[in-house]
Amino acid sequence: MTKEREILITEVALRDGSHAVAHQYTVGKVLAIAKGLNEAKVPYIEVSHGDGLAGSSLQYGFSRTNELELIEAAVSVCDTSKVAVLLLPGIGTVKDLKQAASLGVKMARVATHVTEADVSAQHIDVAKSLGLETVGFLMMSHMASVAQLVEQAKLMESYGADVIYMVDSAGALLPHEVTERIKALKEYVGVEIGFHGHNNLSLAMGNTLAAIEAGATRIDGSIRCLGAGAGNTQTEVLVAVLDRMGIQTGVDLYKIMDLAENVVAPILPKPQEITKDSLVLGYAGVYSSFLLHAQRAAEKYNIDSRDILIELGRRKVVGGQEDMIVDVATEIAKESKSQSLTS
Amino acid sequence: MTKEREILITEVALRDGSHAVAHQYTVGKVLAIAKGLNEAKVPYIEVSHGDGLAGSSLQYGFSRTNELELIEAAVSVCDTSKVAVLLLPGIGTVKDLKQAASLGVKMARVATHVTEADVSAQHIDVAKSLGLETVGFLMMSHMASVAQLVEQAKLMESYGADVIYMVDSAGALLPHEVTERIKALKEYVGVEIGFHGHNNLSLAMGNTLAAIEAGATRIDGSIRCLGAGAGNTQTEVLVAVLDRMGIQTGVDLYKIMDLAENVVAPILPKPQEITKDSLVLGYAGVYSSFLLHAQRAAEKYNIDSRDILIELGRRKVVGGQEDMIVDVATEIAKESKSQSLTS
Repeated sequence: MTKEREILITEVALRDGSHAVAHQYTVGKVLAIAKGLNEAKVPYIEVSHGDGLAGSSLQYGFSRTNELELIEAAVSVCDTSKVAVLLLPGIGTVKDLKQAASLGVKMARVATHVTEADVSAQHIDVAKSLGLETVGFLMMSHMASVAQLVEQAKLMESYGADVIYMVDSAGALLPHEVTERIKALKEYVGVEIGFHGHNNLSLAMGNTLAAIEAGATRIDGSIRCLGAGAGNTQTEVLVAVLDRMGIQTGVDLYKIMDLAENVVAPILPKPQEITKDSLVLGYAGVYSSFLLHAQRAAEKYNIDSRDILIELGRRKVVGGQEDMIVDVATEIAKESKSQSLTS
Repeated sequence: MTKEREILITEVALRDGSHAVAHQYTVGKVLAIAKGLNEAKVPYIEVSHGDGLAGSSLQYGFSRTNELELIEAAVSVCDTSKVAVLLLPGIGTVKDLKQAASLGVKMARVATHVTEADVSAQHIDVAKSLGLETVGFLMMSHMASVAQLVEQAKLMESYGADVIYMVDSAGALLPHEVTERIKALKEYVGVEIGFHGHNNLSLAMGNTLAAIEAGATRIDGSIRCLGAGAGNTQTEVLVAVLDRMGIQTGVDLYKIMDLAENVVAPILPKPQEITKDSLVLGYAGVYSSFLLHAQRAAEKYNIDSRDILIELGRRKVVGGQEDMIVDVATEIAKESKSQSLTS
């Protein structure tokens, strides 16, 4: 009489995958993909700029189409799937959230850096008052200790979040690290726990299975790996793997496979693979936005950009501290010069 | 005073990867890749037709260049890496093995279907007498029970194999299945245990870590995933992951990353990704050679080729039993016809 395990999948190709297509989604493409996801019975479909509501900007990249039109398009073809949005306080506002809710969105995911959950209080509160299912989304979670992660998750829970996600934004976590973190969250947090993985170390699927084994019940996937960096846990593969394990997702395997092959693959500018750049981001555990800055600094100081990124990872430098990149580059250049003088 | 864990990597891009380039390797490409692998200090480099020595044929695909020339080229640029060959008894012969040894090959991997280890006795014996390090390579290992796998590995050990590999040819195994199998092999077999994974279920890396955790010390990788199906455990990513875990491989991370990006990626006809075809092979757990036959039969009987492949997997059909494909297709077609008549 044991209850079968069930996992609810959120498809992020129309949000995280926006990075992979340089925010060039059109209403037509969103209609085609959302329609297919709805027919395959994917429970949640996230639609937003890659950096969340109102992310369209010079800094984060301009969207080709206003995301409200894309959200409206997705809602219009979904009768079983629920449409979700991502919001990063500081980029998106309460007003953006209200607009999204008025278009028929059913879930809001409020995302902060893993040590900054306190900035999510107001937005979680508003999302709840709008009647939305509300997720607290702790990004770059490899940068926090297990204790810090639990503490931050409990903050989001106290603000009213229905679900807390541990987000491996840089694809930097190893399976045993995922296990340890999800187990701690399950032990100390009362709401459902989710996991969002990236594939920079080729571990999105392995980490996802470790998360499920440790008790996560919400999982993000991106069809055909359509996500930032090396992409996310590949949704159609996840559905196949969970089916093999006897875990219910409610998603139609053949339909999601066909959608990946016939609709999503053709719109990708290039297939998602683990390149030198995405690998070094996962290995160093740093923000993808550091990459270009590090490469420029490396060229200027005639050093290897990987040395800069790895040192930034060691120092746990976060977004907004981009000025550190040149400091680190200068230090490495000095050190390598003094080494070559003494050798 | 605990000894640090060490893993010896065998790079298979110049053998398994031969499938990914339709056996079109040239001496120039092999020289460039082998030279880079040697400089990065990869311990073993396997060079052969994708289906092993003498695989070049109408049935398995003709090699553009005689593999003996490719082996000679690889040997000529390797002063630290050792060149290995793969041999499937029935395709390659003792004569092929002797020729390879005379060119400077240092390791022979003798491969059989997981339940047919007995056909490897003679070739393992000859390889040993030629002074080669000799590996028993049990393919399609998901098709055997744990007890069968152990029994077959012990046969290869009794023939003199120095190492036994568990080979997940279809990329069909899940991490807990890898753990169970490698643990059993470690318990009952006296020689080193290796693991060769494929990425059809996006688990090549996750399974590899499970294998290492369970005691495997030899691991196959393919640079930039250059292997059959969805490719193998990506070597440069594996080196990064093991480095993060404090496990020694002796491989230079930056050099292997650069080789992947600058030399290997440009020669790939298309990036390796998990497509509908490679996913269904991993999900069904069948030979890749069944795919085309199943697709032809599906078209003829107006059914879904996936239904055929999944049923073949259930029945544990093996290579050489291709006539079963039409039988299965006929049955599925009949069943679907009778269902539509009664519904």
